[in-house]
Amino acid sequence: MANVKNKNDAITPRDEDFAQWYTDVCRKAELMDYTSVKGFITYLPYGYAIWEQIQKELDIRFKEAGAENVYLPMVIPTSLFNKEKEHIDGFAPETLVATIGGGEELADPLIIRPTSEVLFSDLYKKLVSSYRDLPKRFNQWCSVVRWEKTTRPFLRGSEFLWQEGHCLFETQKEAEENTLKMLSIYDEVGRDVLGIPFVKGKKTEHEKFAGAVATYTIEALMHDGKALQAGTSHYFGQGFAEAFGIRFLGRNNALETPHQTSWGVSTRLIGAVIMVHGDDNGLVLPPKVAPIQVIIVPIRQEAEGILPKCQEIANCLKKQGIRAKIDDSDHTPGWKFAQWEMKGVPLRIEIGPRDLAEGHLMLSKRYNGEKLVLPIEEAEASLPKVLDAIQEEMYQKAKAHLERSVVDVDSIETLNAALEKGGYARMAFCGGEECELKIKEITKGGTARAIYKEEVPEGTLCPVCGKPATMVVYFAKAY
Amino acid sequence: MANVKNKNDAITPRDEDFAQWYTDVCRKAELMDYTSVKGFITYLPYGYAIWEQIQKELDIRFKEAGAENVYLPMVIPTSLFNKEKEHIDGFAPETLVATIGGGEELADPLIIRPTSEVLFSDLYKKLVSSYRDLPKRFNQWCSVVRWEKTTRPFLRGSEFLWQEGHCLFETQKEAEENTLKMLSIYDEVGRDVLGIPFVKGKKTEHEKFAGAVATYTIEALMHDGKALQAGTSHYFGQGFAEAFGIRFLGRNNALETPHQTSWGVSTRLIGAVIMVHGDDNGLVLPPKVAPIQVIIVPIRQEAEGILPKCQEIANCLKKQGIRAKIDDSDHTPGWKFAQWEMKGVPLRIEIGPRDLAEGHLMLSKRYNGEKLVLPIEEAEASLPKVLDAIQEEMYQKAKAHLERSVVDVDSIETLNAALEKGGYARMAFCGGEECELKIKEITKGGTARAIYKEEVPEGTLCPVCGKPATMVVYFAKAY
Repeated sequence: MANVKNKNDAITPRDEDFAQWYTDVCRKAELMDYTSVKGFITYLPYGYAIWEQIQKELDIRFKEAGAENVYLPMVIPTSLFNKEKEHIDGFAPETLVATIGGGEELADPLIIRPTSEVLFSDLYKKLVSSYRDLPKRFNQWCSVVRWEKTTRPFLRGSEFLWQEGHCLFETQKEAEENTLKMLSIYDEVGRDVLGIPFVKGKKTEHEKFAGAVATYTIEALMHDGKALQAGTSHYFGQGFAEAFGIRFLGRNNALETPHQTSWGVSTRLIGAVIMVHGDDNGLVLPPKVAPIQVIIVPIRQEAEGILPKCQEIANCLKKQGIRAKIDDSDHTPGWKFAQWEMKGVPLRIEIGPRDLAEGHLMLSKRYNGEKLVLPIEEAEASLPKVLDAIQEEMYQKAKAHLERSVVDVDSIETLNAALEKGGYARMAFCGGEECELKIKEITKGGTARAIYKEEVPEGTLCPVCGKPATMVVYFAKAY
Repeated sequence: MANVKNKNDAITPRDEDFAQWYTDVCRKAELMDYTSVKGFITYLPYGYAIWEQIQKELDIRFKEAGAENVYLPMVIPTSLFNKEKEHIDGFAPETLVATIGGGEELADPLIIRPTSEVLFSDLYKKLVSSYRDLPKRFNQWCSVVRWEKTTRPFLRGSEFLWQEGHCLFETQKEAEENTLKMLSIYDEVGRDVLGIPFVKGKKTEHEKFAGAVATYTIEALMHDGKALQAGTSHYFGQGFAEAFGIRFLGRNNALETPHQTSWGVSTRLIGAVIMVHGDDNGLVLPPKVAPIQVIIVPIRQEAEGILPKCQEIANCLKKQGIRAKIDDSDHTPGWKFAQWEMKGVPLRIEIGPRDLAEGHLMLSKRYNGEKLVLPIEEAEASLPKVLDAIQEEMYQKAKAHLERSVVDVDSIETLNAALEKGGYARMAFCGGEECELKIKEITKGGTARAIYKEEVPEGTLCPVCGKPATMVVYFAKAY
């Protein structure tokens, strides 16, 4: 009965058309809705609740790492925005600009923030005057706007929700440590919460953030073999601080320039969860991000004792902090199974008259369909463990998929073949922007996702230009 | 020693210049900072942390009342915005409008949301087609932009943070119940969390929200005798639904129009907390919203055993979920006292060698300066109770202030005299917009804050126009 589907809920098979499957899941699992403005979506309750879980998990870790939340304006005066040259060049073409306020034309039009480096820099200039004022570790949860031509729910939007951490340190060492520390928090949340293993590493010169000295990334591998940049952590050096005139009186009584970092993840992580774990029946959520972790479906709910037992189990789960729900709607069990599979609820419990008589519960794991029979008296102790097991198993499954996908190549031909197949190809090359662009052209979209290592066996040459290779890089096609 | 002040921290006395005192507290307690765009402020960590506490307390209660969080676009196409006439008239003059996206002029300029009624209505039109889809109870945490001429931190900003709930119901009765339910949640959070008693009630025709059938309000009384509208809950009737064509198939198989509500509070609540509880030494926070509830100040911290005992007490508090902090900086105790008084920390614990020797802690309540001596072995059990007591005492103090301020008047002269003095004056009047405007003019700013009751003794006349009075209203000067 588990595969009986309401026709209205049918989605495109994943291997037939991955892009359409993705959109179907976003819509049918009621994660989002489109609006009348392209690229601006509505985050519906179920989608937003996933974001709330992600926020909660990140926010705890940020605060443990010393970050403090703030909120800065959603607008940036054009004159301020123009202060850091590389940064403008990177963002100006995709800005939304407000030119009218209170019915009058604005002398200094306001850019709706695409990111807030300049606002944080402007703030820090006022807050920091001595080494005693450092470090500053501010983080902001907000939405940003980038006027995108091609948009897709959660993956690329004209407006999206994110967090942006912006920190200021006395020394380069502290700033670099912070850059890596925050990257490791993202990695940990991927592993422990999202069930997603990441390829971590530094970006090449060509791929790094506009205005950064170094950009580090976490890259997830989608089911279709494409990579998704899921978060970045930047070391800015002193560039922004110099452009904005941030100076502080150092320990030796001399004026110094601080070192800056920034780090961010967005609702793109929801897209990653969908594309890493989802299947032909819809969304599949790891327990830690699931708004509903356990769905309890009564079988013959009109029969005596069924609903009270469902309630008893639900209460026992809620008492342990588990998000459980009973579906006692007037639909058939088959309809309910399909519905909650579509919504990716990690664990289903069925309770029917026969189960009651035999004193057990029927469990079904969403991610692999595995069925378990659990004696009712073991429910309280065992169900949290079952959820923990699902969390771990989903991570291991995704990790195996990622590891299987990585191949080492040493020529354009083998690179091309590997990227055609999907997944990551590790190849040594010179690190030059020109060669990277050529690779992208030849492989029809293969890009350097992250540097694997910055050393190569002596004599290794770049397969594009023939000059000495300097680094081994993860290449992939990406979203 | 408690009154020794760092000169830099001096603030204007409250009774000398309340407006300047308010601004001084906002700045010196490091709640906010100005930015280069008028009316757009930075919420600094300490100010934002207060907002996070308020959010947490509200969000739990909203969810218990069946609300689900969503996120809608920050922009509204002008064409969509123009659909509900009264609403446009109310908001159009204060909008910020984006006209350029990705370098090109927009055909349908985008209004940065001043509030999201039209977006929610547009969404509901798509989501609701049957009575089975109702009720919908969506809430959004976001920032909104209103291009204000006169701005003041937290009280009136061109951008501010808030929540806006928008609900849709099958019947008028349910919608009206929801309007009052949410008002009662605001009232409860005022009482139990902010330590603020509110005057609650319906707004007059003149004061109600643009597009609402009825607006209910919570009004707080500031220390200077002025009222502050701290939150509103609206019953919209079917106006928006009709304007947006929201229809549903009812239980009797006929097409029906749903009934709508909306309700919101904003960072203005921070302003209310400052102006209700603050004093000449700075901010005074009720424990429930205080980012730091207990500050532990070591006296002669270099002496043996002092810092370990501070740590022990801090750990014991943290274990109980109390937000405690030790100030072991190299400032003098007097400096620290003044600093944490400025920041409004509700309870200070001093631990010095003599206290250790005598086996007790010195406590000091921020709101009234009361000192308590507590045997160390009672700390674990007693400190949470001390915080609860502070919370309750602060509420009672504010309540007494509010109650003392209410007078009943029956003429323009007595009204004028009462409003001159500050506080609320209850007066019967006809309820007409014209009389209300006249009252505002005569009293130099006195407005109808909330309706006290909609019945009057027979024969009571409106002191302005002489026609029969229909209601008794709370009048006050307001922010």
